[in-house]
Amino acid sequence: MSGDSSASVGVTLVSGGTITSPLGFAAGGVFIGLKTRGEDKLDLALLVSDALCSVGGVFTTSAIRSATVDLDRERVARGRARALIVNAGIANTCVGAQGYKDAEEMTRLAADALGVAAEDVLVCSTGVIGVELPMSLIRSGVSEIAPDDDGGNQLARAMMTTDTHPKETAVSFTASTGQTITIGGVAKGSGMIHPNMATMLSFAATDAAVDAGFLQTTVKAVADETYNMLTVDGDSSTNDTFLAFANGRAGNPVIDERSPDAAAFRAALHRVCTDLTRMLARDGEGASRLITVQVDGARSDADARKAAKTIAGSNLVKSAVYGADPNWGRLMMALGRSGAEAVEERVDLFVNGVCIMEAGTPIPFHRDAVVAMMSGEQVDFRVSLNLADGAATAFGCDLTEQYVIINSAYTT
Amino acid sequence: MSGDSSASVGVTLVSGGTITSPLGFAAGGVFIGLKTRGEDKLDLALLVSDALCSVGGVFTTSAIRSATVDLDRERVARGRARALIVNAGIANTCVGAQGYKDAEEMTRLAADALGVAAEDVLVCSTGVIGVELPMSLIRSGVSEIAPDDDGGNQLARAMMTTDTHPKETAVSFTASTGQTITIGGVAKGSGMIHPNMATMLSFAATDAAVDAGFLQTTVKAVADETYNMLTVDGDSSTNDTFLAFANGRAGNPVIDERSPDAAAFRAALHRVCTDLTRMLARDGEGASRLITVQVDGARSDADARKAAKTIAGSNLVKSAVYGADPNWGRLMMALGRSGAEAVEERVDLFVNGVCIMEAGTPIPFHRDAVVAMMSGEQVDFRVSLNLADGAATAFGCDLTEQYVIINSAYTT
Repeated sequence: MSGDSSASVGVTLVSGGTITSPLGFAAGGVFIGLKTRGEDKLDLALLVSDALCSVGGVFTTSAIRSATVDLDRERVARGRARALIVNAGIANTCVGAQGYKDAEEMTRLAADALGVAAEDVLVCSTGVIGVELPMSLIRSGVSEIAPDDDGGNQLARAMMTTDTHPKETAVSFTASTGQTITIGGVAKGSGMIHPNMATMLSFAATDAAVDAGFLQTTVKAVADETYNMLTVDGDSSTNDTFLAFANGRAGNPVIDERSPDAAAFRAALHRVCTDLTRMLARDGEGASRLITVQVDGARSDADARKAAKTIAGSNLVKSAVYGADPNWGRLMMALGRSGAEAVEERVDLFVNGVCIMEAGTPIPFHRDAVVAMMSGEQVDFRVSLNLADGAATAFGCDLTEQYVIINSAYTT
Repeated sequence: MSGDSSASVGVTLVSGGTITSPLGFAAGGVFIGLKTRGEDKLDLALLVSDALCSVGGVFTTSAIRSATVDLDRERVARGRARALIVNAGIANTCVGAQGYKDAEEMTRLAADALGVAAEDVLVCSTGVIGVELPMSLIRSGVSEIAPDDDGGNQLARAMMTTDTHPKETAVSFTASTGQTITIGGVAKGSGMIHPNMATMLSFAATDAAVDAGFLQTTVKAVADETYNMLTVDGDSSTNDTFLAFANGRAGNPVIDERSPDAAAFRAALHRVCTDLTRMLARDGEGASRLITVQVDGARSDADARKAAKTIAGSNLVKSAVYGADPNWGRLMMALGRSGAEAVEERVDLFVNGVCIMEAGTPIPFHRDAVVAMMSGEQVDFRVSLNLADGAATAFGCDLTEQYVIINSAYTT
């Protein structure tokens, strides 16, 4: 059984939270001209911890990927890092051998500016594919960045491409040994929804002391239930990356899988990533509504994930949601082709809590009321398969004419 | 290596060909009120052979499927059939146990009208899900149908839902023993593109004598390279069915896998299904352009199929084609996430024959010329992976605002 159990373990939202809400993290950004200048734009940023961090990360599985992914994967495997440099506007992808050289140089530039070791710096890029980074701009830009502990929002803005607003949050909980532990998170893009071949990037920072192996396991598990359950248009990127840094400044005993705080830490990170996932889905290209698809009663969690993602990703379901149409036939179609075990005579369907099909038979519902509910900002589907206790939730958005207009008008 | 080798084995197009072009097949249709009456509409049809046929078939793999699929699968497993009854307007899906009873009764009604055995009749339905068939209309309608050997076009029209025109063709070739062998084919819908939860249905009829086992193997292989390579919106239906009937009226020696005519028969069926697949893609909802994606040099044919289908099915690629935008970054992104082995430094990309990327590096191309080529009725992508000799071709269509409008405006 998956799901958000953050409330039950005392996880609370930090007001105005950013990635620099936890102790010991600083960030800052500048505009160096990688993206078209707009009001208040930034496109290059640094994140740094005042102590070495344990680190975990997950990356795109695409066979065509940015050099930054290869470099970060190598460094994350060592389990430690201290800083991050990120740019928006150019993805550093499909540029041949120059890509890895430029990614490495970016980490050296950040290391020199911050006074840390280059091998402890990670790097992410997002933006246009097939264009080399203008390294001279980056060389001069890095030294202009002045990270401080209120700088989280600058980093959130500097990683945006066609995002309409920055996406950031933070939560805290009290460790069993009394310390307050804070986790901040930031994200941009969502899958391949963005016309500049943009990317889903997300970073989390915490002042908890966390064992690197446990952090990696937790990052992977949480990503599978949040970012990997987000579908905007079925496309995924060459640069997708989620990194988590834990610097231990809260002074708690190191959290590992046997720690009494393991569940709370996992729930807190889950909450951060769930909230960011919802923000990403809501900001999907051309989207007018957030869609959530909760599947329960599946033969397994894996089956539930398949069913939920297939329904949330169906163009026909997404179009129906745009039209506020409780078109249950499309849900059944998508369920049927998902590969998840389903027995028609057992399926119950709900739209925003209203049952519209029970045991495989459509039941009369007050159509106008359901249409009215579906006309809001969020449409929640629940599909009960009534086979076993596998469960999962997927996130998506509706498909609108605006999506097509944005993505057909864009020019490489 | 897959592909169309029909030209090399002397397969020729039959002018004005339909499913009743081969000897011994008759068809006819009537309008009984299952779909909204329009000018010249038909919605119930029969196909019958004057001799028992060997038969092959492939069906939707969806877990939620029409009762007709279950019934046909049982009967096709026997390897023989003689007639088919098909209706449009109502899918006979998600109606509980009544669905199978109604499907069975439809075959009995057809059998009585045609004077054949009920177990030799197959049945297909397409249209709205969750509505029971009005059997009284079907009972009286079947007896009004007068199949004749010019009736192929009536069947093609009677199976249409939101198709804008009937889709039918026929080809012939000369057997090694001198007989002329004809294969006629008909299709409707394409995947789940149609708002009424409509279906991809296709039927082929031939006067060749064909071994039932060989026919089944050939139907499966050809469908994998044609209909199963067609993607309009990634959705697939509860009712998808492709059936082939072979009545032996041409008088040729029975074709099996060791027959000297095996390759020609396969090529001829491949040609019929390829032509119908192109017609289906071109008639995709809201589509303005046909897209073909040819992948060669893949590690295996299976890898090539994955890559071609993923590219043809990508909303971002489809939107770019609508905008006549040679956005190669999106092709690389879709290739990368397809699961096919790809090495960036080896990939060549072509748009309508013009190379736009060589060995993973974008090359200068005359942009205006490529945009002009992409503004036509068909856009052909070729992706050479230069790894081995796996090849495949996928078919699709562009994504337009009209698709969204059609599918959000439709009401269950």
